[in-house]
This record gives sequence, structure tokens and C-alpha cells, in this order.
Amino acid sequence: LAVGFGTAVAFAPIPRITWEHREVQLVQFHEPGISNYSALLLSEDKDTLYVGAREAVFALNAYNISKKQHEAYWKVSEDKKAKCAEKGKSKQTECLNYIRVLQPLSASALYVCGTNAFQPVCDHLNLTSFKFLGKNEDGKGRCPFDPAQSYTSVMVDGELYSGTSYNFLGSEPIISRNSSHSPLRTEYAIPWLNEPSFVFADVIRESPEGWDGGDDRVYFFFTEVSVEYEFVFKLLIPRVARVCKGDQGGLRTLQKKWTSFLKARLICSRPDSNLVFNVLRDVFVLRSPDLKEPVFYGVFSPQLNNVGLSAVCAYNLSTAEAVFSRGKYMQSATVEQSHTKWVRYNGAVPTPRPGACITREARAANFSSSLNLPDKTLQFVKDHPLMDDSVTAIDGRPRLIKSDVNYTQIVVDRTRALDGTVHDVMFVSTDRGALHKAVSLENNVHIIEETQLFQDLEPVQTLLLSSKEGRKFVYAGSNSGVVQAPLAFCGKHGTCQDCVLARDPYCAWSPTAAACVVLHQTDGPSRGLIQEMNGGASACPDKIKESYRQHFFKHGGTAELKCSQKSNLARVVWKFQNGVLKAESPKYSLVGRKNLLIFNLSEGDSGVYLCLSEEKVKNKTILQVVAKHVLEVRMAPRTLAASTSP
Amino acid sequence: LAVGFGTAVAFAPIPRITWEHREVQLVQFHEPGISNYSALLLSEDKDTLYVGAREAVFALNAYNISKKQHEAYWKVSEDKKAKCAEKGKSKQTECLNYIRVLQPLSASALYVCGTNAFQPVCDHLNLTSFKFLGKNEDGKGRCPFDPAQSYTSVMVDGELYSGTSYNFLGSEPIISRNSSHSPLRTEYAIPWLNEPSFVFADVIRESPEGWDGGDDRVYFFFTEVSVEYEFVFKLLIPRVARVCKGDQGGLRTLQKKWTSFLKARLICSRPDSNLVFNVLRDVFVLRSPDLKEPVFYGVFSPQLNNVGLSAVCAYNLSTAEAVFSRGKYMQSATVEQSHTKWVRYNGAVPTPRPGACITREARAANFSSSLNLPDKTLQFVKDHPLMDDSVTAIDGRPRLIKSDVNYTQIVVDRTRALDGTVHDVMFVSTDRGALHKAVSLENNVHIIEETQLFQDLEPVQTLLLSSKEGRKFVYAGSNSGVVQAPLAFCGKHGTCQDCVLARDPYCAWSPTAAACVVLHQTDGPSRGLIQEMNGGASACPDKIKESYRQHFFKHGGTAELKCSQKSNLARVVWKFQNGVLKAESPKYSLVGRKNLLIFNLSEGDSGVYLCLSEEKVKNKTILQVVAKHVLEVRMAPRTLAASTSP
Repeated sequence: LAVGFGTAVAFAPIPRITWEHREVQLVQFHEPGISNYSALLLSEDKDTLYVGAREAVFALNAYNISKKQHEAYWKVSEDKKAKCAEKGKSKQTECLNYIRVLQPLSASALYVCGTNAFQPVCDHLNLTSFKFLGKNEDGKGRCPFDPAQSYTSVMVDGELYSGTSYNFLGSEPIISRNSSHSPLRTEYAIPWLNEPSFVFADVIRESPEGWDGGDDRVYFFFTEVSVEYEFVFKLLIPRVARVCKGDQGGLRTLQKKWTSFLKARLICSRPDSNLVFNVLRDVFVLRSPDLKEPVFYGVFSPQLNNVGLSAVCAYNLSTAEAVFSRGKYMQSATVEQSHTKWVRYNGAVPTPRPGACITREARAANFSSSLNLPDKTLQFVKDHPLMDDSVTAIDGRPRLIKSDVNYTQIVVDRTRALDGTVHDVMFVSTDRGALHKAVSLENNVHIIEETQLFQDLEPVQTLLLSSKEGRKFVYAGSNSGVVQAPLAFCGKHGTCQDCVLARDPYCAWSPTAAACVVLHQTDGPSRGLIQEMNGGASACPDKIKESYRQHFFKHGGTAELKCSQKSNLARVVWKFQNGVLKAESPKYSLVGRKNLLIFNLSEGDSGVYLCLSEEKVKNKTILQVVAKHVLEVRMAPRTLAASTSP
Repeated sequence: LAVGFGTAVAFAPIPRITWEHREVQLVQFHEPGISNYSALLLSEDKDTLYVGAREAVFALNAYNISKKQHEAYWKVSEDKKAKCAEKGKSKQTECLNYIRVLQPLSASALYVCGTNAFQPVCDHLNLTSFKFLGKNEDGKGRCPFDPAQSYTSVMVDGELYSGTSYNFLGSEPIISRNSSHSPLRTEYAIPWLNEPSFVFADVIRESPEGWDGGDDRVYFFFTEVSVEYEFVFKLLIPRVARVCKGDQGGLRTLQKKWTSFLKARLICSRPDSNLVFNVLRDVFVLRSPDLKEPVFYGVFSPQLNNVGLSAVCAYNLSTAEAVFSRGKYMQSATVEQSHTKWVRYNGAVPTPRPGACITREARAANFSSSLNLPDKTLQFVKDHPLMDDSVTAIDGRPRLIKSDVNYTQIVVDRTRALDGTVHDVMFVSTDRGALHKAVSLENNVHIIEETQLFQDLEPVQTLLLSSKEGRKFVYAGSNSGVVQAPLAFCGKHGTCQDCVLARDPYCAWSPTAAACVVLHQTDGPSRGLIQEMNGGASACPDKIKESYRQHFFKHGGTAELKCSQKSNLARVVWKFQNGVLKAESPKYSLVGRKNLLIFNLSEGDSGVYLCLSEEKVKNKTILQVVAKHVLEVRMAPRTLAASTSP
């Protein structure tokens, strides 16, 4: 088996445009003295963005987040802080109240939990008064003790489902349902959860056709320590786990525990390039009326030899459902009296199928609730919560692989281009405050642009998409604040070619307006608009650059001619009298890869200089005149000409 | 278990100096029409370098390889070529004779094997006539059929030990001894060899003290598919294997097979950074009178997520010997009737110890030869050739980790610095024709220099060190030719500070000669020489830069001031009238990060400009004046001054 050397170039799609922080219009929110803006929640009907930060919750205008509507503070009492510090935690950083759960409870209240100096509590926030009701519910199992620990939660029909750690030390992981009539939780056992990092949770409603007929499911995503794999050291593995909403626990076996907890591997890899992305960072569920089923988008990084590599993989819900409802289970076996190995279970599987939701068939067989399930089924699922089959990515490979970046969060917007083709636009944030916007175009990924959302190069902790008509924004939270960005910066493209070469499904050139405009935003007809998602700019009218700058220089001097060109995929070519100039010669030099320096000017250097950008799109090369300079060199008097520097 | 993001910076030691191909004096050899110079052999007494290439062997002057002494051609006959092409191989590339074995046979002959159009043959090359004797020995098991396949061999006391593939398809790997009285080979079975890539072999002579008392051993190094590890796809693992020279095979069990074949994992990893280097590329055995035991240096790359990462790990012979002579074995176990898992064998081990050489104790117990060994011992080693204990690297971590490079080969020279400290200087070649020279200094690795050996960015296929007094060279072979490089380019350092900051153990500054000289080369005393391996340049005399260049420029023009500075670890600082200039302002710009551009010159710009290099060594900052320019700006006549460019 021969192994070739790494091929770094292949995984380095370059964002076509880089927008610096001050270069584009971003709306920002930051409250002095408040940090860790990690929880974002959008109220669709109220047009309000709720933000959970350290010791505070804010209500912001979703159209302009710099407009604060309300604020509520939730500080830790001094004696709690002191007790926390006594246990060896930091008073300045850890013994505070980090908001970790911010969920809708009703039309008039939010459900909020915070770490509360290592004593997690939950409360209700009245949206009319914007005051906490002081419920002081125990937050154990809903919110972590330690702000450094992972967590996820989702509110489903008034009941909170959460993945977090259950104790002060953070050593007992739990996936639980907080419910007055039927609270449920995971077994505290390695086969169920093995040092997990919780990433995401969401509810999948029963589909009208019905997968296995008849229940809503809550999906959990996390990375945990693998039991089935072994290498030189501990291997991590990304998992998707599923519980059924109708689960009531078992009667004797699995009493007050999930009877429907099953988990499976998520595979995000490129075996032909020896790439394994086994650390899951974030998940987004893409839903759309024109999608048959929800699609899970995951952001991954490798555990091993990671010097800055990230990937996005997408999964069909039905792939995961098939693994849970029809896949093989894994079992643990003891080898030679001392080694535990996990292998495929090939024996008989009890009925009803262990871990399944209560289906129509189960009800027909008189198993109307998990409380009725036979002990055989319950004991099996207790011992075999891990599936042997894996959940594989759509197309069996990542949608996007990028080197030299650490992706943290993802949201995906499904949009229609001018020609009617549908594009799933991935917005992926980095650990250095940037946002990448990427689309898949003919088996290639195209990173349309990179936007520096935060001036400080800090990790983006959370992303939220608002795709309501007329309110299309990405909201991003970090330690320092919240940023609101539009989905596209069409107006920044000044020419038809720039606009079209962007290959941004949101943008098209309007010859009427002589501007790059946002599609679908204007009520006007889209007739006459120009967009070429499959590359090229042939539909743009040929335009001869008429404007130019004139310069006079003295003999023997040096001239600098400017050329501003934004595309990172283009290279700059300078022409003089229609001949291409060779930069980096004794005569010419490029400054900042764009501007031309001409040394030791003489009369022969007078004439027209053109700066062209040369961009390759699908093997077509597109030339565009970016700047035109007319230079005139005048003779200096002879007396001084002789003393020019060598 | 939390996993942080990658830390690319930490693994990016930068070579202090980069020597371009034409910048240093390298001696080259290339014969027109001949390619693939992959076998190098040095005759110590004859001062001759033998080179095996495609269809040719050359004898070169080891002091100056451009001087060819002899040549012998060994082409494939036309009918053999035709037969090979009939089997679907390429006539132009594969159906030729690639020299793969070039070993000393006697004082007057070499043993040479070639792929010979997929029909490997071996022959003797008479060193007096430099003609092949036409022995036409079958090369099967000594030389691969396919030039693309891996191979290794070593001649030990007139018998060839080799690791290669045994058949046309390359599917049957073999480690064998070609011997008239006792030919031996490996079992053709997965537990023995599992798709190996052979890397290196060498003999380890019985030490006077005796490890397990009494035999020479031949060590083989290779990368193979792991049986003991599992992940999303096949995992590779680097191995060291060992056979005993005195092995005669078994009488019934293991007849004509090794009774002493044992193999173990080589671990080269950094668990704290999740780095696993599990592909072995090359091995060098460092021997020295002042070393208690040989040290194995290995060049590794990761199999997984490799976007250009390489490492060097070093192993003590005694660590490997301890694993083989006292370590636990692995055994395969069948789990649930269908899965094979390899786990530690904890049962009783037969005596004599399976896989051991015939030791004094064995002889005392009447096991005078492997032919006498009991069936129990032989059957055990046949089933358990893999050790459970691993061979761990010295200090438990790599000596060198480098990103953005693919290392291919290594040689190591042990040398003494001026202060008497001993340094193991690693010469590591890349897949782009370069050579890195690195030393470990106080837990840090310092890459002294990078030399572009080959103009084309082609992989270096083989490295050979000559460390004889007065003939210290590195020889490198590639597809295009052979290059001879000195171990240091001391003379290229023009000042005491440059010489000393290089921290090159081979170089020291001679105040008498006012030059950077090669240590140990001159017979003269080393008194007065200056070298500071632990950083700094304080021993160099303070020297004010006296020489300067004077320039006259015209008012309104642009000046370019040069500064040549070689260290990649230093930054350039420009000073004017003792104030530091801010580059990238409207007034100043840097070209190529070194030269200063001054725009829009006026009388106020007249004066003294200093270019300083600022280099940090161990938190000390060393400033050195590299260039001094005196500028005089003269007024231009008024008539033209007004028409200067905006």
C-alpha cells in the first residue's frame, strides 16, 4: 500500500473576495461591560433578536441590532460567588452567570438557564416586562456547571431536551428531558455516552408519510471518545443520537431512562486523500418546502494532525433514520478475559425492535407505550445503544474542504438563482472572526467571499440565519459582541463583470440601474438582469474603459501607477502600448502585487498603461481593464541629468 | 474530552538561511539520456562513489562526482521488452532495467540487481574491468519486478538480505536471505507482512557486552497495514523487524523460514498535539565511537490529514532489543465467530523464547541451532510474529516536526562544536529537491539552512553521507542526477555576526583570517575562533560599518536603497538620522521586504540611511548594520518642479 505525500493545494479553495471589517456595512451590538454573547434566538413574529450573554439578556431590533429594545440582568449573588471561589474556581471568569439556555417557552416568556457560579439555575423571562420571574428552578441536567463545558438544548412543545454534564466536575454526561410528567435521562454508562462534547439538538417532526410511522424525534449531535476504534491514542468520533418524543421510559428496566436512545457514527472523510474529519463542531438543519426531507449540515475538523483543516459534510435525514430503524447494532465482547472490543452484533434482535419509537405496528401488537415494552427489548437497547452502520455523507464526500482555517459554526440558506437553479449557500464562520460564504458549483466548491465580521480575530461562537423575505441576515455572536450582516454585498461590485464573476446567487447586474443589485429584493421584474452562475461574463456588454488618469513625470524618476482589483482569484497584468510588461525586472516592479513601479523614467516610457485583471473561470480566461493611465515623461535640464543616482 | 484547534505555527521552524541552487557551489553528475539515479554506494578505500541508475552503473570520484571514472550499461533486450509490454506494462517507462540493488560483494566486485523489464536479474560487476560478468542470476525475492515498488537490501558477510515483493503483481511481500547454504524467507501470511512498503535494512553486529548474548541481527524497517488498529479506513503502521544472522530455519515447522522474525511498532507521535506520524519514509543508523549504541533516525509523515507535515524520530537500539527480547507478544482472537482482533497475549510463553537468537543460554540448554528448536517455540513464533510492546522514540517525542514540507530521506552526522559539545546534525531531504540541515539546541530544533540541491523541484530519492576526515559530503540522488554538497557553507557568511548567528557547529569565525571557516578542516589550532552554539553573538567584536554607498537624487523623484540580508529569522529595520522609518507609509515602501523605496524626494530626505537586521535568538535581540547609504537630494530647476506627478 503506497501512500503519497499530502496535496495541500487541492484543499485550498480561496475566497474570491476578502472584505475587511471596515470595508462593508455591518451592524454591531455590544453592551459595555458585558461579554460572551453566546446565545441567539430569533422571534419570527416580533422581529426581535434575543441575545444571551454573561449575566444579561437583551432584546434587539432584528432589522437593526444596534437598536436595543430591552435588557435584563441576572447576576450571581456575592455569597454564591464566594462559595464558588472556595471550591477553587475563578471569581473573575468562572464564578459568574453564563446564559447557556435561551429558548421560547410561550408567546410571552422565554426559558433561560445560566451556569450561575457552578450552581446552574433556570428562570422564566417575561417578554412584556422583560423581567425574570425569579422561579429559581434547579438547572442541573439542563445547563452545565462550568462555562467551559459543552451544552446543547432544544425546546419541544414546552419540554426542554438538553445535552450537558450533570455534576460539578463535569464528569457525568447526560441527555435528558425536563418534563413534569415524564422526565427521562440517559444511563450513566460508557456505551451510552463516553466523554461527549455536545454540539447541537433539534426536533424532527413526524413526516406525513412516516418513516417508521408515528412520532416526533429529537436528534442530538456530539463528538465523543470512540469505543469501536483504536489507534496510537484515544480516537474521537462524531455521533448522531436520537430519542422519541413519545418515550415514557421502561416500567422496570430503564425506568425513567430513554428506551429509544440510539446513536450512530457520522462519517465525514475522503479516503482517497486519507482525510478523516472526526471532530464535529456545529450542525445546521436545512429545511425547505422544495426539499423532500431535512438535510443536516455539519462542520468538522480532524482530530489527528490538524494544522488547520476544516470540512462541511451534509447528511440526509433518511440516511440516519435508515440506520436507526433498519441498521445492525454493535455489541461489546470480551477477548481473552481482559480486552473489550466492540463488533457487529449478528445475533437475533428482539421484537419490537429495540430503540424504535412506538409505531403503528407496535401499537397494533399492543405495545401502546414504552412502558409496555418487553424486558428483552429494553435490556437489549440498554446494552446496545450504538449502531454498527454509519451515517454517510451525501455523495460520500465533504461538500467543502478548506485548509488553513478552523471553522466553528454553520448556517445554510437555500436560494434560487436568476436562471431558476437552486443553491444551498453555506455561511461558515471561523475561529478568527470571519465568515465564509460558499456554494457548490458543478462538483467544485466556490467560496464567494470572506467577510471579517469581528475586528478582533476571535472565534465566532454562534451563527443564526434569518431568511424571512425582507429580513435576510446572518447574525453572529462572539465573546465581544453580536454582528448583523446581509447575505450579500452586491452593491460593492462596481461593474457588470465584477458582479457576474462573483457567481453570487443573490446578486445580478441590472443594466438599467447600471448597478449590481440584490435578486428577489426588488419587486421589479428580473427581466434584463445578468447573472452567470456557471461561470463567465459573456452576457456583460463589452465596455471600453474610457476614463483614465494622466500623469507627468520627470526624466530619471520613478512612477507608481495604481490599480485596485478585489478578486483573490485574479492576477494583475500590466500592458504598455499593448505589450505585456514583465514585472520584477530592473525596469518594473509590482507593489502589493497590483500597483506598478516604473524606474528610471525616460521619454520612451511615455504612453498608455493598462492594468488588466485576468481571472480563470472554468478554463476560460476573462480579461477586464481595471485602470488606465496615461504617462508623460519630460526631459530634465542637462545640468542635473548627469548626477542621477547609479 | 475537548479538542482544541490546530496550532500550525508551533510546527513551523523556519530554515534560517535559504540557499538557492545557483547560490552555493554544488558538484553535479548527470549522464545524458540516463535517469533515475536511485542507488548510491560509497567505497571508503577507493574514494569512489558508485551510482546505480536506469540501465547504467557509474563510478565517480568521491571528491568530485563530476569526474566520471567508469560506466557500465545494462540494457533490457528487445525481446524481453516486448514480452513485458505484452503483459500490459509501459515500454517507455516500466519495461526497462532499474538498478535496485548495488551492494559490495568483494574488494573487486559489486553485486547488482535490476528490475529488467519485470524479470529481475542479478549480476556481478567487476570493479577492475567495470564490466558485468553476465551471471544472469534470478533476481526474484532480491529485487522488485516493478520499478514503482518498494525495496531494501543489505549485504552481510557475502549474503544478501532483502525486503521486496516476490511476484509480478507485487502482491507477495518477502523478507529473505539469499544464501547458497541456508536461504531463508518469511511466511506468506498477513500476520508476518501485510502490504509492506520496505524502507531500509542494516546489520547490527553483536555487541561486545551482548544484548541477548551472541548473534548479529539484521534489522528491517517498513510501513505496513496495521492489524491491531482500526479507524474509518485502513491504518498504516511503521514497523521495525529483526532476524538473526545465525538463523537456519526450523527442521519441520518453519522449514527454510525465519525462526527469528519478530516485528514491533515504531511510535513517532505527539499525543498532546494529536499528531501521529505513522508512515515511515527513511531510516539512518547513527554509529559513533562515543555512542554507547547505534541510534536509528527515522523520517515520518502522517497518513491521515497530511497537508504537508513531516517529522524525525530517533530510537535507541536497546529500546528495540528490549521489546524483542523481553516484550509481550500479540495474538489474534476471533470475536463472535466473525471478527479477528489482535490483543496482548497474556498466556505462557514457551522456552527457548520464540523469535530469540540462539543465545549462550540456549546453547547451554542444547539448542545449538534453530534447527534444534522445539516445535512449541517455532509454532508460537509462526503465529505471534508481532510484539505488543512498542518501540518508543528517545524523549518520547519527535526530534523535529516541520509543516509545509514532505521529507524523503535522512542522514545524520555527529560532530563536535568548538566548545566540545557534541551535535547530531540531521540532513533531511524534501520531495522538492531541497536539503534541510537541523540540530537540536536546548529542546528546540534549529534548521540551520535549506539548500536547493536540485534545480527542478523533484523528490530526493536517496541520500548518502561521507564523513571521512577531509571528505565530508552529502551525496543526493534524484530522477535527474546526483549532487554532491559540502556539510556546511561557512565561507558564505561574510561577517562575524552572520557566522556566529548561523549556529552551525561546523562553522566558526576566525578573526585572524577575517573569515567564517570550517572547523576541524584546518590543521591549525582552534584558538581564537568564535562560535556560539547557544545563541548570541556577543563574542564578536563590535564593528561600526565604515563602508557606505553615496547617492545623488533629484527633487521629486523616488530612491531605492538596497539591503541584502540572508537570515529568514531576521527582520529588516531602516533608520534615518537614527530614527526608525515606518515602511508602508505614503513616503516609504519596502520592496522584497528588504530594499527601501523613498517617494517624492525633497531636501529633507538627505542624510544617512542604515539598514539593520534584527534577529531574535533566545529572547535576545541582535541588531546588525547590514547596509549604509548616504543620500543627497538636489533641487531641480523651478520650471519643471511644478509639473511633477500628483
